[in-house]
Amino acid sequence: MQALGRQILVEFYKCNPDILKDVRKIEKFMLEACVIAKATIVRHTFHEFSPFGVSGVVVIAESHVAIHTWPEYNYAAVDIFTCGESIDPWVIFKYLEEKFESQQSSNMEMKRGLFELKDKKLLHKPELVVNDG
Amino acid sequence: MQALGRQILVEFYKCNPDILKDVRKIEKFMLEACVIAKATIVRHTFHEFSPFGVSGVVVIAESHVAIHTWPEYNYAAVDIFTCGESIDPWVIFKYLEEKFESQQSSNMEMKRGLFELKDKKLLHKPELVVNDG
Repeated sequence: MQALGRQILVEFYKCNPDILKDVRKIEKFMLEACVIAKATIVRHTFHEFSPFGVSGVVVIAESHVAIHTWPEYNYAAVDIFTCGESIDPWVIFKYLEEKFESQQSSNMEMKRGLFELKDKKLLHKPELVVNDG
Repeated sequence: MQALGRQILVEFYKCNPDILKDVRKIEKFMLEACVIAKATIVRHTFHEFSPFGVSGVVVIAESHVAIHTWPEYNYAAVDIFTCGESIDPWVIFKYLEEKFESQQSSNMEMKRGLFELKDKKLLHKPELVVNDG
């Protein structure tokens, strides 16, 4: 059995709202997180909403890292989708947790694209692990 | 209780591999899906990998739609992340299912950023619904 990808869905609560409002800082931290995790950055796009809130995505050779922030709730939703064994998505998680000054977070790790190797028979249910921290 | 966002994680199996290899078609279908769902497209970026496989993201005012394709497995992973009540993520799901000619799919719908409205007390566990089709 093989999963083509893994995805960590992160809820960063109790963040520093000034950081969550700052599109340039968020872009910088997201790109730095990818570099530290040794991901290969392909493209990235970040956008600031009015009155506040940031959305952004870094497309990496190993899939993507996406963020949406709600500064008014001190909350950011982050998705870290990776494939292959070359990078560790938890490095990205840890880096962003620190930079956003998140005092509470929860996450789910999903396996995406599950196949049996021999006959490529697929399994219907994605696997799920829930962590609350 | 209020969820700031909802996210549908879709596994599109048994797709047409020629479509999954074609970055221009995928970009077109993803953008069309967003338009049909009345999403507001903010930015988009698509990338073709060698020897094949496509990654792409459409950032919408209502969050994002992301895709990664593995044509060799006839498989595409799609994430549809929306906030607000103005658009229906299942419209995007249905459109892409048809355009990729997916003969089998499964999905999970997640609620992201759960808060109680009165005191903004957060709930630790994201809610999860699994559908196999």
